[in-house]
Amino acid sequence: MVSAPRDIPRTLQDLPPKWAHCCLHVEHFLAGELEFDLSGKTVVVAFSGGVDSTALLLILHYLAQKNGSRVVAAHLNHQLRDEADADAQWTAVFCEGLGIAYEQRTVPVAELAARGGVGLEQAGRDARYAFFADILAQHDAHCCALGHHLDDLCEDVLMRLARGTAWPGLAGMSGYDRERRIIRPLLLTSKSVLQRFLTDIGVTWREDATNADPAMTRNRVRHSLLPLFLMENPNFPETVARLWKVGRLDRDYWDKQTTSSGPLLPHSLLKTSHKALRLRLYKASLDEMDGGQALADTLFKLDSAWEERRFGAVFQFPGDKRATITRDGVVFSVFSSRH
Amino acid sequence: MVSAPRDIPRTLQDLPPKWAHCCLHVEHFLAGELEFDLSGKTVVVAFSGGVDSTALLLILHYLAQKNGSRVVAAHLNHQLRDEADADAQWTAVFCEGLGIAYEQRTVPVAELAARGGVGLEQAGRDARYAFFADILAQHDAHCCALGHHLDDLCEDVLMRLARGTAWPGLAGMSGYDRERRIIRPLLLTSKSVLQRFLTDIGVTWREDATNADPAMTRNRVRHSLLPLFLMENPNFPETVARLWKVGRLDRDYWDKQTTSSGPLLPHSLLKTSHKALRLRLYKASLDEMDGGQALADTLFKLDSAWEERRFGAVFQFPGDKRATITRDGVVFSVFSSRH
Repeated sequence: MVSAPRDIPRTLQDLPPKWAHCCLHVEHFLAGELEFDLSGKTVVVAFSGGVDSTALLLILHYLAQKNGSRVVAAHLNHQLRDEADADAQWTAVFCEGLGIAYEQRTVPVAELAARGGVGLEQAGRDARYAFFADILAQHDAHCCALGHHLDDLCEDVLMRLARGTAWPGLAGMSGYDRERRIIRPLLLTSKSVLQRFLTDIGVTWREDATNADPAMTRNRVRHSLLPLFLMENPNFPETVARLWKVGRLDRDYWDKQTTSSGPLLPHSLLKTSHKALRLRLYKASLDEMDGGQALADTLFKLDSAWEERRFGAVFQFPGDKRATITRDGVVFSVFSSRH
Repeated sequence: MVSAPRDIPRTLQDLPPKWAHCCLHVEHFLAGELEFDLSGKTVVVAFSGGVDSTALLLILHYLAQKNGSRVVAAHLNHQLRDEADADAQWTAVFCEGLGIAYEQRTVPVAELAARGGVGLEQAGRDARYAFFADILAQHDAHCCALGHHLDDLCEDVLMRLARGTAWPGLAGMSGYDRERRIIRPLLLTSKSVLQRFLTDIGVTWREDATNADPAMTRNRVRHSLLPLFLMENPNFPETVARLWKVGRLDRDYWDKQTTSSGPLLPHSLLKTSHKALRLRLYKASLDEMDGGQALADTLFKLDSAWEERRFGAVFQFPGDKRATITRDGVVFSVFSSRH
């Protein structure tokens, strides 16, 4: 039986002081660290009904009363698990009970994956982002808030290290991606804090059984790698939070140093740039064209060729992009073969 | 029974082409990546008799004939294991057989640790560095070569991540530490390559039983963490090598950006510096004074205080160092309380 959550505190003032403070801490993180001012904005919350997104929805709901923002909960029913319909019903009742605007869509993700020849994870992600984009437009919302927290960030950093992501990408997922209109208000908050928050104020949540599936990389990291790091250093999450802050600064720093990137990097610019900056200039020039990620190895080779002024040397990058050493400098272009 | 290695190839030319190429690759790494030209220099090799240092000694020995450098093997008998004396004897005979200059010292490390109230690892490290410093002086040598290889670098990066080392320190141990006169010629070479090299040319080595002791952090990382990363990505060592290269560049870049660090960082300098640079300026100013490592958290707090111009605010750092926000800028000093 699903019933509306009657006994949940209705406003920020009704919360125990500790949890009101926790909400304000999230607002502080948004304003200070992510430079995102909630006031007056509409935010779509990706609401699965799990502990992360339930806590996120409630926190933003409480803050909305204070800063004049508006929250829209958006639930996508992936139809992948037996409980999917019950989850969807639960999220609808939960929002109705609290007077939170609610949107729901049902998508046959397994069918889409089979039809598109992609994995379930990919098909699910595609369906979610299409759904959120529609809701963003429909509600004239500013961005979509995701429930990623500090435990997710730890896992993300470990996965990025395993995959070989360079700096500053190694420091983990972004807190506020303006281009993709995604914000992660809980990124430096531990999952255990979110669980205590919900438990203390008498809110239940839906458990996701797929979180235990060892076939998924993220779950392997969660259940085997992360516990080992926590054994070496019980404060590992805090050190990851610090690394993330340094990474955010360095990303911003390099972004500002590479504003002169473009289809031509003249020798005069490269000659006065440190090798660490040159590699980022190449990468920024490639990133400005759509398509695949530049490989660090090829960037190193490109720079060696530039150092030796090997005019005519051409380097291929994913996404049909290439770099050529010319007498004018390093020229970036996209193959025309597709046209 | 210990006998001199009679059938080992005597010169670079006697090596199978594959392994001669491997030696030249190490020379290339020294010259290109570490900017260290071996020619005419005397290098002390820390020679335990294990696979790493035996391979290192041989590679530098073969290269010495080519580039006019000179190799001195230095063996410290820690007297910690039953096989210690046999190991020492083996290293002496090995070097005699190849005509390599050889120095040996015996130190009762367990006794020193008990007397000094430090751990075995620390006492062993202290004894080794004192020994190497003496041999460096005695032979008018340029630096001491250590056998750390790519597997060690992988473990080092994982330990640094666990401990919370910021960027660029996170990228791992240095290849060439001019100040401490330490060089690591094999840092981007896999241990398996070194093992194959020795096996192929008919050289045996001494095994170190302590390498399996799970009480040591390094061994926990080696036997539990690293295999998991290799399972996620079989090319993990190559991605770490790439990360290390980016880290080396970034370290050099930030070193060059912070040459204006010192006991006073004037507001005019800080005002025109990005926050990412300001944090490195503080750190560089603190590093110029001897003593403990600055904590990232305190550096962040110091910068917030500077941003708010909280004149008079004082921040304490390990090693009795402190930073004060004054009307002139941020001033760094060491407590005089010790005098």
